[in-house]
Amino acid sequence: MTTVLSDATTPPARVPLAVTWVGGLDGFLRLIDQTLLPGELRYVDCHDVPTVWEAIKQLRVRGAPAIGIAAAMGVVLGVRDFVDTDTDTFFARLRETADYLRTSRPTAVNLFWALERMEKAAAGWQGQPLRQVANNLLAEAERIRTEDAAMCKAIGEHGATLIPQGAGVLTHCNAGALATADHGTALSVIFQAHALGKNIHVFADETRPLLQGSRLTAWELVQRGVPATLLCDNMAAMVMRQEKIQAVVVGADRITANGDTANKIGTYGVAVLARAHGIPFYVAAPSSTFDFSLATGAQIPIEERDPKEITQGFGKITAPAGVGVYNPAFDVTPHDYIAAFITEVGVIRPPYSTTLADALRR
Amino acid sequence: MTTVLSDATTPPARVPLAVTWVGGLDGFLRLIDQTLLPGELRYVDCHDVPTVWEAIKQLRVRGAPAIGIAAAMGVVLGVRDFVDTDTDTFFARLRETADYLRTSRPTAVNLFWALERMEKAAAGWQGQPLRQVANNLLAEAERIRTEDAAMCKAIGEHGATLIPQGAGVLTHCNAGALATADHGTALSVIFQAHALGKNIHVFADETRPLLQGSRLTAWELVQRGVPATLLCDNMAAMVMRQEKIQAVVVGADRITANGDTANKIGTYGVAVLARAHGIPFYVAAPSSTFDFSLATGAQIPIEERDPKEITQGFGKITAPAGVGVYNPAFDVTPHDYIAAFITEVGVIRPPYSTTLADALRR
Repeated sequence: MTTVLSDATTPPARVPLAVTWVGGLDGFLRLIDQTLLPGELRYVDCHDVPTVWEAIKQLRVRGAPAIGIAAAMGVVLGVRDFVDTDTDTFFARLRETADYLRTSRPTAVNLFWALERMEKAAAGWQGQPLRQVANNLLAEAERIRTEDAAMCKAIGEHGATLIPQGAGVLTHCNAGALATADHGTALSVIFQAHALGKNIHVFADETRPLLQGSRLTAWELVQRGVPATLLCDNMAAMVMRQEKIQAVVVGADRITANGDTANKIGTYGVAVLARAHGIPFYVAAPSSTFDFSLATGAQIPIEERDPKEITQGFGKITAPAGVGVYNPAFDVTPHDYIAAFITEVGVIRPPYSTTLADALRR
Repeated sequence: MTTVLSDATTPPARVPLAVTWVGGLDGFLRLIDQTLLPGELRYVDCHDVPTVWEAIKQLRVRGAPAIGIAAAMGVVLGVRDFVDTDTDTFFARLRETADYLRTSRPTAVNLFWALERMEKAAAGWQGQPLRQVANNLLAEAERIRTEDAAMCKAIGEHGATLIPQGAGVLTHCNAGALATADHGTALSVIFQAHALGKNIHVFADETRPLLQGSRLTAWELVQRGVPATLLCDNMAAMVMRQEKIQAVVVGADRITANGDTANKIGTYGVAVLARAHGIPFYVAAPSSTFDFSLATGAQIPIEERDPKEITQGFGKITAPAGVGVYNPAFDVTPHDYIAAFITEVGVIRPPYSTTLADALRR
């Protein structure tokens, strides 16, 4: 039932990092341009804030944790030319940069979390020489990145315990190394289960409209040698009914206090299908994706994107003029569909109204 | 939430017929090349059987009833040059043509139904002059076409009674005029509900991998002025949760004696989602789509198609080399997910193990 293709672009030997800072304070933010994968591995080097904003907006960098890291590094780009001004000018510039980056995308909370962390840190360094503050901010952004990589690694280790030997594991969109500092969230669980010799087989939803599952997740899985089958989103139900899937693991863009989870459009449907087939549905995410300021998922702003992503996403017009189009980038999975959250502090089970805050709230 | 596009190709004023015969016995079968829609309305004129076979195989003509009609007309193309031979040669050629056309696609039963009807009819005309038999076969194929149009019209009239005033109606793939002689099955219900002034709004799943919902269903809906919103397949669950959908209506490729229904891949997932949201799920199909020779859906052969439909369906490589791909063209929805069948003889409710045979078996 599975056909292995051999005529598409072959991935490189090691997944490169999605988000890095190159050099010192006069350096730059380097992103993989994820819109070009898997056909081409090309970098976007961001030397200014508008380039970062555009890269987030256009999904050159995507995935909640990766967006947060990119935004934090964007703050450094915003202030580093102001170290020879005065404190007021420097901090006004910092605020302005953060506010601007906040407008890039609305749903993933890591963006807002990382920007707030950068602003709070800077406030604590008021009075220090401005060049020092800027260097501290670069160090803080680097810390966000290395902490994320460590959290993702821990997520993989905790999550792998949930994956049965020989399991089929379905994932949706890309919650891999490309979506984070490294390792990924959902894919970290999968990579770790694979590394432990659990003999798993991954089913990857292609994830319309932008095909992150096909373009990015499949690419990461092939690269790491994890056996995988690509599916159109509408095939997952049939494969579940064939009893080929024993667990679903997805990432998240924002999780509210009660456990409601915003993630890539289609995730909610997968959760409903998983329940109907008696398959546990897991959400893997670092603590930075939890938003305790929101009580329920109804409060999460859901980004709607250009209808052309659906009607001419492959450079070809595939819909008639005059038809309406609905293109939400995310949906919300109610907490009661979620068997457990896999976080860096461990696996968190219901009742989420108490367990999430107990485990994660500082 | 709905964006109306205006920069794609505008459909013509009236949906043209998908399958027609042009001229007399020396004429030809004319098909709309549905692989080119909505960008281009171009016909394939079939003057020989291999062209018909290729058109069915490559989905230039698709939709269970339309395939049946095309195959019946293909039989005429197969025998019409043999009217000056002897009876044995003529009937051997007839058998050979039908057997060849049977190999074009495995799932839709209308193909086999129509070919069997043509062969049985011809057997009844043994002894008549061969030119007369060939003309009779052409008349029989035309009858299959006109009967299908009439059945589809009746399906619309019966089905419209099930659609509430102001309803949102979801459909998957294309079960429209393009899939039949005229009117469609699921879309006939929708067109009739619209004509009755029920003020409905249609949600059309784009239907990966080949986008029949986006390319064909949206085109038909725009053309007939039915308000419609195009969705990626993975968005239907969210729209259901928003309580914007009050009924699901789909077509079918083969329905077994117990009511299990093969239809375009993704239909089963829609049925599961509909049940989870308390939305009735209807299957609209003419009696020619029912296969009482099979007890359950487990016996239906499911066509698997080229993985490139998923990995490079739009002329662009969107998946890495080395990933497995699963590309079933159909899935089977178990009968217990189906609120009713809408047929030309009326609406048929459970228990299907008795009601289907009572209503449809001859």
